[in-house]
Amino acid sequence: MKLVAVGTMAFDSLETPFGKAERIVGGTASYVGLSASYFTQNINLVSVIGGDFPSQFLSELTARGVDLDGVEMRKDEKSFFWAGKYHNDMNTRDTLDTQLNVLETFDPKIPSSYKDADYLMLGNLTPSVQHSVIKQMSKRPKLIVLDTMNFWMDIAMPELKEVLKEVDVLSINDEEARQLSGDYSLMKASKIILDMGPKYLIIKKGEHGALLFSREEVFYAPALPLEEVFDPTGAGDTFAGGFIGYLCAMEEVNFEVMKHAIIFGSAMASFCVEKFGTERLLNLDRKSIQQRVQQFIDLSQVEISL
Amino acid sequence: MKLVAVGTMAFDSLETPFGKAERIVGGTASYVGLSASYFTQNINLVSVIGGDFPSQFLSELTARGVDLDGVEMRKDEKSFFWAGKYHNDMNTRDTLDTQLNVLETFDPKIPSSYKDADYLMLGNLTPSVQHSVIKQMSKRPKLIVLDTMNFWMDIAMPELKEVLKEVDVLSINDEEARQLSGDYSLMKASKIILDMGPKYLIIKKGEHGALLFSREEVFYAPALPLEEVFDPTGAGDTFAGGFIGYLCAMEEVNFEVMKHAIIFGSAMASFCVEKFGTERLLNLDRKSIQQRVQQFIDLSQVEISL
Repeated sequence: MKLVAVGTMAFDSLETPFGKAERIVGGTASYVGLSASYFTQNINLVSVIGGDFPSQFLSELTARGVDLDGVEMRKDEKSFFWAGKYHNDMNTRDTLDTQLNVLETFDPKIPSSYKDADYLMLGNLTPSVQHSVIKQMSKRPKLIVLDTMNFWMDIAMPELKEVLKEVDVLSINDEEARQLSGDYSLMKASKIILDMGPKYLIIKKGEHGALLFSREEVFYAPALPLEEVFDPTGAGDTFAGGFIGYLCAMEEVNFEVMKHAIIFGSAMASFCVEKFGTERLLNLDRKSIQQRVQQFIDLSQVEISL
Repeated sequence: MKLVAVGTMAFDSLETPFGKAERIVGGTASYVGLSASYFTQNINLVSVIGGDFPSQFLSELTARGVDLDGVEMRKDEKSFFWAGKYHNDMNTRDTLDTQLNVLETFDPKIPSSYKDADYLMLGNLTPSVQHSVIKQMSKRPKLIVLDTMNFWMDIAMPELKEVLKEVDVLSINDEEARQLSGDYSLMKASKIILDMGPKYLIIKKGEHGALLFSREEVFYAPALPLEEVFDPTGAGDTFAGGFIGYLCAMEEVNFEVMKHAIIFGSAMASFCVEKFGTERLLNLDRKSIQQRVQQFIDLSQVEISL
């Protein structure tokens, strides 16, 4: 199955209670591409980078079978840059610097070889840009997953609601679900949001796990309590990459398969936070991933005869 | 199996986004007694009340098989009173008024018929008072469960650590686990706390569920996303009552049985929050409880062949 993922490729400077990392590779498409590559082969990225982006990292991606024809490279410009500092709780962070650079005028052109993709992952970008990607597809993908954030709800709610009509899965966090729906109860919020278009809603709750809603069903995937969260950057994108990568390898997409995809995505995210940036995602293997998934399953399985 | 539960019996005045309730019956022992009564019969409460406490409620308890010989009644004094207002998120609240009244000089005397109890639930009270109860027992109970809060960590940490040496199960929330251990990671915090004495640690995370730790194992019980949380008062005590009540009815206490007990406790708490105060706990039945437990189980069960 052909997967197209659209999102940033960037430099991140990070400070966590465990140390600092300067100008390491990050961005949604980087994490999604790496994470998905453990599950499926036909991965195609759409992004924009400057001349400063390391060719070494691009080679890592292509070596893992990721196609980069949709990554626009602007030799004389600089890549998107973000700097942030995490608080001790690792759930909150301060943005220290944001330099949009190439991202400022990013207007993704989908290569014609990508336009018949079966799966489309729209990373967090301006809703109108996300919408323009859908319009460029030559056929309606089997599944469209969209990630967004509170920022777009603040400044571009009408555009966000427009694109939501076109997607199958929306992935946001609990605060964003409350903001988007205007309801504090996540159960009620899910119904309001599913009425906006998506068939499935994923609510990410960080260290508290993730919820999956359809109109009829709900699933709670707990997060594995970790000894140490070294760097949470990219965890959400790694989750998304594992989630959609797993789905790409399946014959059919239904609620049960989505539950599995959420657990695989959560397992990938739990690796991501063990090291700075993308480092931990470069050298995983099938067996480690399966073992981690088994830990997630064991964590909340019970048998009670009622 | 004989259960003794020690804790407050009180009046609460509550304000939630859904309404107000003036001077309704509350307190740990009230909730624990009612909740446990759905699972076991030999329940014995230790508490203190004033002459203003409604005999109607005491009759409700005795009708449900709860023994009140250990409830000291001081005719000329007033019962403990607490008033609070919940914020829109229902996870945080402001205390508007606290009148200790009879609680100020509460020095529980355990009736001799209670002293050979198999199960002992120590509700949130001064750690030295909790300790004095243990000392009054004629034999070491099979299981001692202790609930406490950040307030005692602030002002009576040495006394709290003394009593922790004597208990089997400690039940606290995530912030309290972090404060008690001095470690942000709940995985690390659990190890530090289990080194203080308890064999099992329950970390309650409100709408995010609960974690159960032993030295070797960890279990995550997710919370059911509810349409409406009407009044969260007593949810923790109702959880504790269901938890220990369920255990009382079991032959053996081990990690697997504790997992079940946590799900039954969570199910009871999910009923509690549907109405003001103890109201919802007065008319439950076995079938409704089983159905709710089944919802909790279904919520996070998956089958993946790896």
